[in-house]
Formats: sequence, C-alpha cells, structure tokens
Amino acid sequence: MRIGRQTVIFDKCASIFETASTVGKKEGEGPLAEKFDTVLDDDYYGEETWEKAESKLQKKTAEKLMEKAHIKESEIDFILAGDLLNQCVGTHYAVRDFDIPFLGLYGACSTMAESMMIASMLISGGMANTALCVTSSHFCSAEKQYRFPLEYGGQRTPTAQWTVTGAGAALLKSDAGAPYILGATVGKVIDMGINDVSNMGAAMAPAAHSTLSALFSETGTKPGDYDLILTGDLGHIGSDILCDMLDKDGYNIYPKHNDCGKMIFDAKKQDVHGGGSGCGCCGSVFCGHIFKELKNGNIKRMIVAATGALMNPTALLQGESIPAIAHALIISSDDDGFLKGD
Amino acid sequence: MRIGRQTVIFDKCASIFETASTVGKKEGEGPLAEKFDTVLDDDYYGEETWEKAESKLQKKTAEKLMEKAHIKESEIDFILAGDLLNQCVGTHYAVRDFDIPFLGLYGACSTMAESMMIASMLISGGMANTALCVTSSHFCSAEKQYRFPLEYGGQRTPTAQWTVTGAGAALLKSDAGAPYILGATVGKVIDMGINDVSNMGAAMAPAAHSTLSALFSETGTKPGDYDLILTGDLGHIGSDILCDMLDKDGYNIYPKHNDCGKMIFDAKKQDVHGGGSGCGCCGSVFCGHIFKELKNGNIKRMIVAATGALMNPTALLQGESIPAIAHALIISSDDDGFLKGD
Repeated sequence: MRIGRQTVIFDKCASIFETASTVGKKEGEGPLAEKFDTVLDDDYYGEETWEKAESKLQKKTAEKLMEKAHIKESEIDFILAGDLLNQCVGTHYAVRDFDIPFLGLYGACSTMAESMMIASMLISGGMANTALCVTSSHFCSAEKQYRFPLEYGGQRTPTAQWTVTGAGAALLKSDAGAPYILGATVGKVIDMGINDVSNMGAAMAPAAHSTLSALFSETGTKPGDYDLILTGDLGHIGSDILCDMLDKDGYNIYPKHNDCGKMIFDAKKQDVHGGGSGCGCCGSVFCGHIFKELKNGNIKRMIVAATGALMNPTALLQGESIPAIAHALIISSDDDGFLKGD
Repeated sequence: MRIGRQTVIFDKCASIFETASTVGKKEGEGPLAEKFDTVLDDDYYGEETWEKAESKLQKKTAEKLMEKAHIKESEIDFILAGDLLNQCVGTHYAVRDFDIPFLGLYGACSTMAESMMIASMLISGGMANTALCVTSSHFCSAEKQYRFPLEYGGQRTPTAQWTVTGAGAALLKSDAGAPYILGATVGKVIDMGINDVSNMGAAMAPAAHSTLSALFSETGTKPGDYDLILTGDLGHIGSDILCDMLDKDGYNIYPKHNDCGKMIFDAKKQDVHGGGSGCGCCGSVFCGHIFKELKNGNIKRMIVAATGALMNPTALLQGESIPAIAHALIISSDDDGFLKGD
C-alpha cells in the first residue's frame, strides 16, 4: 500500500531468510572481520583480472547463500542484481551459470537496497515467493574504471573513499518469519552539483537526506522509533553532512545513525581516508553483520538506506556533476503492526 | 500468478495508456518515418556531445509522453528506465529534473521490455498505479563506447547492426483500458559463446529462443494464438537464427515473427547491414508504431520480446563471450480471459 509519494508499506511482508557475504583481504583485517562468511587472502581470487575476480565474488557469494539456506536454484523465482562495472558485467558473468530468471538493476552503490526493495515488492504483490538479491564491488576494478589504474600510483585525497572488495547476497522469501521488510521508500535522482570523483560522500548525502526525510514524513515515524538508521557508503564526510541536513529538518538521527562505510574499516589504522564505499560495502556489512544483529535481537527495528553515486567519468569530463540516489528499507524483527497503526 | 518457472500472468492487468517516441535523422528516413512523434534533423540535438544528446532524447521523450497523456509528474508513482551508456548515464541525467521516484534498470537492449515488465508487476501487485517506462540509444555514443569512435572510420562487417538513435516511453496505468499486459516471461542470462561485437544478433538469438520457448510451454499457447511475435533488435541474422531454433522445438513462428531492427530501416537502401539495434530500437518501434496498431485493432494479441546483449568491451578483451537476455510481454487489445482458461 502506498502511503505517500515515495513510500510503500507492505500488507504482506517479505522475510529476509538468509544472507551470505564475502570480502577481500583488507576488509578481513577490519573491525567486522569475524562477521563475514569468507575472507579472501588474494584479491585476484585465483583469476587473471580484477573484473573476473569481482564476478567470481558475486557468484561464490550467491552459491554460499544457497548452501546456507539449503535451497536449490530451481526453488528461486528471481535473481535481482547489479554492480558498478560498466554494463554490470560483474553480475552477468556471475549469474549466467544459474538457471534462474534474472532482473538486472543499476543503482550503483544503492544496489543492495534497490534489489531487496524490488524483491520485497514482487513478493508482497504475489509475483514471487523467493528472490535472491546480490551485488559486489572490487577496489581494483573500481579504481581502474572510475579514477586511475592502481599502477599510476595516484595520491588519494583526504575525502576519497575506499571501494570495498566484497559481495553480499540476501534471500527473501514469503512467509518465512523475522526479520521482515515492513516498507520501502523509493529514492529520486538528486544532483546538488558535486563533481569531485574523490568525494562521493558529499555527492550522495543529499540523496540520503531526500529519501530519509520522505521516509520519516510519509510514515509519520521519528528517528527514535528505530534502533539503527544505517546508510550504505556515505563514509565519514557524507555521514556528517547527512546528519546535519536532517537535523535542520527536525530529525535528530545522530544517536541512531551509522554507516557501513564507517563500520567496515578502521579509518585511521587502515588508511582509508573517507571510509568504505561501493555496492559491496552495504552488501557485505548488511549481509555479514547487520542480519545477525536482527536475528539475535540486538536490533529490533531499523532503516537501511543504501546510497548510490550515479557517476560516469566521461560525463564528468564533459562538465557534468554527479547525480545520486538512495533507496531505504524499514526492517523489523517482528511484524508487530508498526507502520500499520495497530 | 506464476504459472511456470519464468512466466507470470496477471490477475489484475496493467494498461498501456499512452506512448511517445523520438528518433534520429536516419531513422526518420526509414519505413516507419511517419510513426514517430519527433524526428531530429540533427543527431546532436543541440548539445555538444553525443552522450548529452542521448540524455536529452530520453528526457524530451518522457516529457512528450506526459504531455500526450495529460499527466503531471506528481501523478506518476515511479519511473523505470535504463540505457546502454556506462552507468546508464543517459537515463540519470534525463530523470534528475523529474520529481518522480526512480528505479534504475540495466538490461541493455531489453530495457523497454524489462521496464514494462517490472512496472506491470508493480501495478498488478498494488505497489503503483502509474509508471513511466523510458529508454534510449544513440548510434554515435554506442559506436564510441562499444566499438570504434566514428572518426576512426572503421569498416562495418556484413553482420554489424546499426544502433538506433531514438527513445521510446510508455505510460502504464491500472484500470485504464486496452491494450493490456496479460503476462510476462522473465529471461535468464544465456551465453552461447559468441564474442563478435559486430554480430549482436547471433549473441542474442539464443536468449530470445530460451524466453519464447519458455513462454509457449508455460502458457500452453502456440505461435498461431498471436497476431505478431515481435523481437527487439535481433536484426536480419538474429531473426533467422531465432526462427530456426524455435522451429526445431516445434514452434513455427515464421509467419508471425517480425523484429524491430528489421522494421525501422530499409536495410538495402539505408546500408545498415544486419538491421537496427539498441534500446531505442524496440523503444521507438514499439512506442511509435506497434502501440498504434494495438489501439486501432490491427493487432489484437501479441508478444514483444526485447533482447539485450550484455556486452562489455573490457571483458571481451579479456577473452570473454557475450551473455544475452530476453524478456517477453504478452499484450492484448482485450482482457478476454486468454491465458486464464476462461
């Protein structure tokens, strides 16, 4: 049921049944090291190129999910997936061996939320019973495609974020218990004129602000109603901008906010400057860490808003700025009538 | 309601309420010239780059659609869109000025069908009442990104297809009369090992075969049940491959099949070799021509299966082949119980 311009709440809620995650070596040395299913010791993952390694990340993470969930390909109605590589090539080579109908998405680093959002809409609407959502990013393939090849040895600016090498996968099902996806707020494309490829957090924060302020106003909920308000990969700088922007609207999220890009690395010890980013940032942190917190009751009710910088190097050379988007999900460990006025 | 591994039929069908189309100069000299809302006389469209021209194509076509449908941005629940440019940049710069929630898709040249398919699922499931689907392609931006810059003056091979400069946009609504989207068959990613960037038709035909044979077997319908079985941009070579492949399965589509890539150009007079291709091929032909045929009763019941080559030049240089996908919609000028066993 639509309850506002951007927000849908579900009469019948999809369940997040199981998740899986894989990360690279550096992410496996960070604060969340113990939370991931697989930590690579070589970011080439036995492949000859970074692009092939990224594709393997996504494929192996999806396979790990099916193994953990004791589910076969034939029992999955749809895969919804995408990634940062041109033409989402990480995804297409990952899923071509799966005998599962596929819906390709492009939401840059918002893909984990976009895929779970569309999947929960399809499940709630009776179009599917089971959907697999997966995404990935790879530091080396992203630097090469969006900024400079690593061999160039470019100096990273203080605002630069570190693209996470990692993948997250989530299996959504109907009638499978908590945690539930209670609702979703669909983002609009927001462009505030940022054109610095080393400051993605600043480009994305206004999109997160747009989506979260719509979520609060359309649902009539407050930051205090949630145990956690999680953003995808704003990092340290973007997170501060977001909290300040929402505060000016009267939404004080400071005590409840965290960001996957702040959580996955120890910014000082690991020299990652602005924090983590990439589709795999929200993907691995949500699927590796947050899902467990929802299952064990440490988090009862939360928002996850993954943010995507819809950035294209050619467009920037042509004088364009960086549009961004954020999609948000409201997730709860019980289906207690919250949002339904019970 | 799912009636098979890949096919959903809708209890409540979305209507295709209105469409709009824009094409470039060459497309405006082809057999369908009179069918399009706008024909450009300059493929730069007053912009300084081809990428900006493509983005403007998509934006202006969406605006034309809103004008024709007498609908305001505030009445549209979602835009679903994507294109061929890296990071779908044609789309993002087109939609950033619209105050409409956005779902970004990547399905390469299958995007017109993918967007209408997901939109019809969201409308049927009660998640939206009105959705705008739009996509585009541009010959010059596509050649530059996927093959050679035009200035290089490369010789085109006999199998090469000509990327359509054009855009198509469709407005889907609930409870808005014929034509209706009765059902959809979601494609799988199929890769038969083709790695020739100048033979997209051969790469995509097996995906169209996979989806259409699933559609026929899961719905229990035959080619003879349809007035038209339309593919997106297989062109002359891919169309022949598809018809032959389906014939071996016992589905004779020869008398009912046509392909947007064969229809939009006069292959001999216009020197386009394999025919048209690109997201804008199915987009402009379906939205410019086919929709009118459905409205005036010349087509009563049809399938449109748009095909996408999920091709990435970097992956090909790394020795990969070209995966492909096709998504199919069953469209009818009346909601007469076909597919529901009435």
